Amino acid sequence: MEMPTPDTKIMSRKASIVERFQAVLPADAVIHEEAGTRAYECDALTAYKCPPLCVTLPRTTQEVSDILKICDEERVPVVPRGSGTSLAGGALPTADCVILGVARMNDVLETNYDDRYIRVQTGRTNLSVTGAVEADDFFYAPDPSSQLACAIAGNIAMNSGGAHCLKYGVTTNNLLGVKMVMMDGTVAEIGGAHLDAAGYDLLGLICGSEGQLGIVTEATLRILRKPEGARPVLIGFDSNEVAGACVADIIKAGVLPVAVEFMDRKVIQVVENYARAGYPDCEALLIVEVEGSEAEIDEQLGVILQIARKHNPVELRESKSAEESAAIWLGRKSAFGAMGQINDYMCLDGTIPVSSLPFVLKRIGELSKQYGLDVGNVFHAGDGNMHPLILFDANKPGDLELCEAMGADILRLCVEAGGCLTGEHGVGIEKRDLMVDQFLPEDLEIQMAVKDVFDPKWLLNPAKVFPLAASAPRRAA
Amino acid sequence: MEMPTPDTKIMSRKASIVERFQAVLPADAVIHEEAGTRAYECDALTAYKCPPLCVTLPRTTQEVSDILKICDEERVPVVPRGSGTSLAGGALPTADCVILGVARMNDVLETNYDDRYIRVQTGRTNLSVTGAVEADDFFYAPDPSSQLACAIAGNIAMNSGGAHCLKYGVTTNNLLGVKMVMMDGTVAEIGGAHLDAAGYDLLGLICGSEGQLGIVTEATLRILRKPEGARPVLIGFDSNEVAGACVADIIKAGVLPVAVEFMDRKVIQVVENYARAGYPDCEALLIVEVEGSEAEIDEQLGVILQIARKHNPVELRESKSAEESAAIWLGRKSAFGAMGQINDYMCLDGTIPVSSLPFVLKRIGELSKQYGLDVGNVFHAGDGNMHPLILFDANKPGDLELCEAMGADILRLCVEAGGCLTGEHGVGIEKRDLMVDQFLPEDLEIQMAVKDVFDPKWLLNPAKVFPLAASAPRRAA
Repeated sequence: MEMPTPDTKIMSRKASIVERFQAVLPADAVIHEEAGTRAYECDALTAYKCPPLCVTLPRTTQEVSDILKICDEERVPVVPRGSGTSLAGGALPTADCVILGVARMNDVLETNYDDRYIRVQTGRTNLSVTGAVEADDFFYAPDPSSQLACAIAGNIAMNSGGAHCLKYGVTTNNLLGVKMVMMDGTVAEIGGAHLDAAGYDLLGLICGSEGQLGIVTEATLRILRKPEGARPVLIGFDSNEVAGACVADIIKAGVLPVAVEFMDRKVIQVVENYARAGYPDCEALLIVEVEGSEAEIDEQLGVILQIARKHNPVELRESKSAEESAAIWLGRKSAFGAMGQINDYMCLDGTIPVSSLPFVLKRIGELSKQYGLDVGNVFHAGDGNMHPLILFDANKPGDLELCEAMGADILRLCVEAGGCLTGEHGVGIEKRDLMVDQFLPEDLEIQMAVKDVFDPKWLLNPAKVFPLAASAPRRAA
Repeated sequence: MEMPTPDTKIMSRKASIVERFQAVLPADAVIHEEAGTRAYECDALTAYKCPPLCVTLPRTTQEVSDILKICDEERVPVVPRGSGTSLAGGALPTADCVILGVARMNDVLETNYDDRYIRVQTGRTNLSVTGAVEADDFFYAPDPSSQLACAIAGNIAMNSGGAHCLKYGVTTNNLLGVKMVMMDGTVAEIGGAHLDAAGYDLLGLICGSEGQLGIVTEATLRILRKPEGARPVLIGFDSNEVAGACVADIIKAGVLPVAVEFMDRKVIQVVENYARAGYPDCEALLIVEVEGSEAEIDEQLGVILQIARKHNPVELRESKSAEESAAIWLGRKSAFGAMGQINDYMCLDGTIPVSSLPFVLKRIGELSKQYGLDVGNVFHAGDGNMHPLILFDANKPGDLELCEAMGADILRLCVEAGGCLTGEHGVGIEKRDLMVDQFLPEDLEIQMAVKDVFDPKWLLNPAKVFPLAASAPRRAA
């Protein structure tokens, strides 16, 4: 993946830039020696690496404002970073950039059960938001697979989802307000603890803007009452296409499971070797979970099992206990880790209309044969958010490039099927060049013009989201 | 309410401008004589009236593009109009503007039950979207009170809600994609029949932008399966505050009714005289409706009734039949019409955190005494979306101004309570000058800068949303 040529003039001013940061930040909040900056050279898209000029780790909104003011004056690019779990290279540095990491900003600022919200600093991890309210029977709904590590800042930047987002929506549906620092150091409050907002929906615009419009330091998040109970069912099929058709029929029937997860044979085998979850030997598995009281669960699962039976499942296992439920989820939740143990892989993130699942799964199988690279499919099927894992060998010359080419073909397939390039991982650097397959030049132009408003000098995460050729005139200006 | 001075130079060119429209549109699609333009002089905020320069009624996206191209070249302001049901003056013309009305664009373009969406021209009325799919047991969820008349175009412009939006969300949660014509005539497709989107969330930005960024000619809308059944319960209380506290407790408990509607004594009496719905004589009434199977309904209502009983209700009436359900809803649904029969009124639209309901209702009562104007409260309590109706006499000099001042105080109260100026009606001209109570000058500046991107000449609905003083430099440019 091509990255822009770093500005050597900025790099030659490193000492004086670092000095300015040290004047406004505690000593331990500025990392500038190579041993230290090396730890920030990549995110979870580890195929690409580049140590930044230096790293700043503020603890307060005021410190973030001070950092941005200096970068604005010095015209230094800023790469915002949450926990660095991006699978799309959203936090990949350039050699001339300052990393602004919010990981130390992890306080809970306010919990309000009457109005059902929590206000946190955005460096807080996703799971620890639920951790702060679960003793009182509340939870925060979006649950990315990386929820143990990923920060709310990154969730907002990428509009992250998760297994349970079929019912509860993604980040944008659970975000009520933000405090955001603009590139010139101004602090803005957008949204709040209320529904809707007067004027334009800037909160919606900011959610998913990949750190390109400002640095979000505080977030007001919707929290929900824990459901009375939940029960998963495991359904096995003898082909991916039939499993896909079953998902489409469940969604079409209008029942709303809290999650519909999909795994194909490749993933089932690897997961079973790794986690011993007791999965059956079959071509495709669905985990369908419903929530509510016992009566509600029985009723909803009744409808789902009736639909599943019409598709001739080879396995139909309804959980009878908390232990069985945990075993059913164990495999799914360890799928990414298990795959990583046996292979290098690239995790894609395309979204398609649910009815296209059977067709798209079939085409992915064909592409796998054509490129000679194995693919594992494990994803949020209920909302059509696919995560094909392309397996490759990082040590084999040319394999990464082959993998990238195949990934691009799969994402183009998603767009052709009426879907789009990303569901929850964002564009980052990974899908930057594919934006031209989704958008016309005029569309990209208007998106970039919106960035002009918030960040006229194009200093915030500038090499992401847009094809480098398209953003070049603005980045150079 | 002050309106900008019309541009007499544009008005003097009326004949040649009309001629250009006539060259690209059928004869019946251009209305320029006074008798015809008079019909478009106001929307549902009838206190303000001004006939436009002329009216265009296109039937296709191409015709919309042709109209905008002419207006762009001639620098004529454009006021977009759906069905003209705005309560905030969103479709109020200026004397130098062209009305672009989409009412004739009302075709269903595609229905897709597998992926649960419908694609329509935006002049189609809200209720007739459901009408197109209800034979197949589907429906479109947002249901503004004006749903018989209001157009999807206006729903998108104002991000409209309705009684059932507590469960299903407002327009932005049910809108998948749009076709939008930009001011220079370019046609853009934004979003589609899939979840999320790559790049910035322009769809979210456009929803609620009050016709200031482009003309939306087609919309892809999420449709849902009709629930198996629904049942309302009527709960009466001897004070507004206690009813408000009951709503807050229901929401806090985590049950999710499909609707929680509130009416105070003033509204109950007027509605009862008008519709004879059989409402009890009490200070405040709630209608709480739940959906699902019989078992689910019983279970949810059980929780709700238990909470209600703790607040010593003076009436607790669970519907036992379809007739009783219809009677319970009849009063609520005719409330606005009934109030209009006895009085001139101004309908406000503020949103507050649900826990503030008791406090805000009490303060509204105090303001009513202070200003000497009666207030009726009828609104979507579950999501904190209030609609105080201030009663006044349009024929009494000074009464409208008094009513406006009181309305402004109530909306400021909503902002102070942690809420915002509008839930679903939009800012329009009505709340334009109050935007400074919600936003800092820097916030307004950035919102206006976003409009600059889409509409650099500020021709689309220019006198709305922003205080006239704030938008003056741009409108003059």
